[in-house]
Amino acid sequence: LLKELFPHTGRALTIGITGPPGAGKSTLVNAIASAVRAKGRRLGIIAVDPTSPFTGGAILGDRIRMTGHHADAGVFIRSMATRGQLGGLAAATSDVVLLLDAAGFEIVLIETVGVGQDETDVARVADITAVVLVPGMGDDVQALKAGIMEIADIYLLNKADQPGVDKLERDLRVLLKLAPRQDGWEPPIIRCVATDGTGVAEVLTGVGTFTGSDLHAARATANWSFRLRSMFRERVAQSIPSADVELAAAEVAARRIDPFTVVDGWLERAPNQT
Amino acid sequence: LLKELFPHTGRALTIGITGPPGAGKSTLVNAIASAVRAKGRRLGIIAVDPTSPFTGGAILGDRIRMTGHHADAGVFIRSMATRGQLGGLAAATSDVVLLLDAAGFEIVLIETVGVGQDETDVARVADITAVVLVPGMGDDVQALKAGIMEIADIYLLNKADQPGVDKLERDLRVLLKLAPRQDGWEPPIIRCVATDGTGVAEVLTGVGTFTGSDLHAARATANWSFRLRSMFRERVAQSIPSADVELAAAEVAARRIDPFTVVDGWLERAPNQT
Repeated sequence: LLKELFPHTGRALTIGITGPPGAGKSTLVNAIASAVRAKGRRLGIIAVDPTSPFTGGAILGDRIRMTGHHADAGVFIRSMATRGQLGGLAAATSDVVLLLDAAGFEIVLIETVGVGQDETDVARVADITAVVLVPGMGDDVQALKAGIMEIADIYLLNKADQPGVDKLERDLRVLLKLAPRQDGWEPPIIRCVATDGTGVAEVLTGVGTFTGSDLHAARATANWSFRLRSMFRERVAQSIPSADVELAAAEVAARRIDPFTVVDGWLERAPNQT
Repeated sequence: LLKELFPHTGRALTIGITGPPGAGKSTLVNAIASAVRAKGRRLGIIAVDPTSPFTGGAILGDRIRMTGHHADAGVFIRSMATRGQLGGLAAATSDVVLLLDAAGFEIVLIETVGVGQDETDVARVADITAVVLVPGMGDDVQALKAGIMEIADIYLLNKADQPGVDKLERDLRVLLKLAPRQDGWEPPIIRCVATDGTGVAEVLTGVGTFTGSDLHAARATANWSFRLRSMFRERVAQSIPSADVELAAAEVAARRIDPFTVVDGWLERAPNQT
């Protein structure tokens, strides 16, 4: 199905929105959704839930369902759990984006909580990734990891009506100067107040700045490189009969053969990629 | 190196210790370490840090370094970040366990915070996994996910001197009756107070109950099945030239070919795996 639909995709703009818990991402997603709908454009929202095996999940999904958008036929909302997705969360998210794209949704927002590798990988599905920060993170801005700084195409300073936003922006600018992006992109820093819609128009303008740049096409290619590799990896892994794997595993567990020799053997009878 | 060392491994007992934040896992690990050292046995501790890209990490590692064990030559302590490990965290952890095993460490404790798929995967490195719970989780016990219940070989009710421990145990027993393990194992439930060492001897006895059962060998084989598959997956993925991947990705991004056809082609030029 996805294969047949694929030629009809490539028109949707996918925006990843990530940030620490409490940054107001869901509210911001709702504000952006309202702005997009006000222009009459259809929009998909994918909420990636950081389900904890101890406390349950659906943190984001529930909040989104509380808003008015769920009753609007021009908005598609889907909540995805981070656990138990075949081929990983990024793969599953990518498939949903393709479906929405083929169905004519023009904008797809992917909301994630930046808590782990899974969530960072999801950024590789988006055309552009916005990182949401809020005043009061204190010195935590300095703790922003290179992993996040490489995926942040724009920074959104939410709750910009609160004290501390000047310091936050100053700290962030220092950090960006100290550790500039390897691709030369200088991420715009945009202030907003998601609760009353202030700055949301500027967020969409900031997105446009990136998508109008040369980086946009390069990003799509880089994302597909990542995705092709993981698709191939899953397919190849599935191609080894389970019985063979279990037999080898028992031999390894008994120390009659080492795992490296086993894998070398599988590679030999497998892909000849020279 | 690991290949040469492999025949010298298989003697260490690896114990995974996981649970929600605040369950006192680090304190418990320290108490177990003291008990093991009191018997004169050498022990390795691997702390898997759930580094957040927003707030930094090393939550567990720092706490462990605060204890007295770091100065003891019979204790090896290693902190591992969850991000940016080639082939995943489970792979990297597995390699460290092999090294410690070959070096003659008899017990290896792997401490993780159960927050994501990565951490659950780490359980597949351990011979036995202990899940730590504490009173006051309230109804959260009912939210324990199947993923955790399948990996929990023993339950440790820490802070058992606090009110609510009876209710916690009762709730847990109901849950275990409602959703028994597929392999028939009935996980022991052990009360302890890590801060004063109460019950720590019983924890080691509980570990022995499992390792003395038939499940122990089956677990080792299952773990190696998982590990062999992921080693193979990584090796195969690395075997495709990057230039090929990028070329194909650009074609896919331009919608001149679909990704499924690309991956089919890569699989075809791979000799058969029948």
